[in-house]
Amino acid sequence: MILTASEVNELKHAPAVEGVLPTVHQRWSARSYAGREVSKADLVRVFEAARWAASANNEQPWRFLVGSRNSLTHEKIASALAGLNKEWAPTAPVLILGMANTRFERSGKPNSYALYDLGAASSYLTLEAAALGLVSHQMAGFDHEAMRQLFDIPTDYALGCVIALGYQREPAALGNEQLIAREHAPRERKPLSGLVLSSWGEPAELS
Amino acid sequence: MILTASEVNELKHAPAVEGVLPTVHQRWSARSYAGREVSKADLVRVFEAARWAASANNEQPWRFLVGSRNSLTHEKIASALAGLNKEWAPTAPVLILGMANTRFERSGKPNSYALYDLGAASSYLTLEAAALGLVSHQMAGFDHEAMRQLFDIPTDYALGCVIALGYQREPAALGNEQLIAREHAPRERKPLSGLVLSSWGEPAELS
Repeated sequence: MILTASEVNELKHAPAVEGVLPTVHQRWSARSYAGREVSKADLVRVFEAARWAASANNEQPWRFLVGSRNSLTHEKIASALAGLNKEWAPTAPVLILGMANTRFERSGKPNSYALYDLGAASSYLTLEAAALGLVSHQMAGFDHEAMRQLFDIPTDYALGCVIALGYQREPAALGNEQLIAREHAPRERKPLSGLVLSSWGEPAELS
Repeated sequence: MILTASEVNELKHAPAVEGVLPTVHQRWSARSYAGREVSKADLVRVFEAARWAASANNEQPWRFLVGSRNSLTHEKIASALAGLNKEWAPTAPVLILGMANTRFERSGKPNSYALYDLGAASSYLTLEAAALGLVSHQMAGFDHEAMRQLFDIPTDYALGCVIALGYQREPAALGNEQLIAREHAPRERKPLSGLVLSSWGEPAELS
């Protein structure tokens, strides 16, 4: 079965629960990206969303290196990807490297919430992308040391994620059967009973 | 100047940028909570949103202990809060303790993305809360060791945050001038030029 780009996007919608933000259901981690560029206006919107995430002491430890296709930044980020990410992610029109300052700016003391807060900002970014009709994919799989050297990133900054951003393309264009299968697989999550507890090991009564 | 609950909520809206999810602008970290309870249906919605966050290898390392007012869980979470959080947060009708498994379930290997992913799930939760007309507040300030002992949490789980959840109350009811002032202070963020870079130290050209 060959699905079109819009069919894949629908397939990947989580089952709707009445009253839950549609964007939460719509966001998913795509691997097949079309040639269409992301406008600067939309880039501003996704980073604007990230900017308003919450952070410990309002420290805003997140920083994003952004590269559009054919830029040196895009090329460098792509070159440090690992495994299968190396195969599909370089075709995304935008690649973003997310980092977090692990020390508080004023005091210089360690900020153990840096990655937690980066995870928040990246979520705002990718939810906003979904709201704009874009797809995105956060990746942990890259050579952290190579990336740090490529961009001369200070050791105080933890490297968090690479985010691919763009428009959904037909999955078949990926060429690789394994990647195509992932693009066609429904999204899955653990049931709420495994995640929401009233005490350790005991599911909360939510209904 | 004494603001009403709804005036505070408006004051705390970030400046709207056309095309950015209204919920992103509306979410803020409130300290003054009304007596009104959060319905079980809304609790399901906020956790349902958290459930659909992205995570490394779809590991979903997040777990949430949830306690509604007058429950033992609520009482225990409140008892381990620190500093000023101890003063205002116990009045929230719902307190949630967010944790993350720092090892992959299948392999037992360390998952360095556990807190990043918990930050994501907590963002989905608090954005969904804002969409439902609730306010919330993620806190780092609590006694981690006391909390771990109170709930007998395995050492593989990192404690991430306590989240207060409920409905906005008049700030004046907080009683404490410092807390009231924070409730009235406009939200502030760094400019995009400090966060979005094309190379280290160089702002990206977004317009």
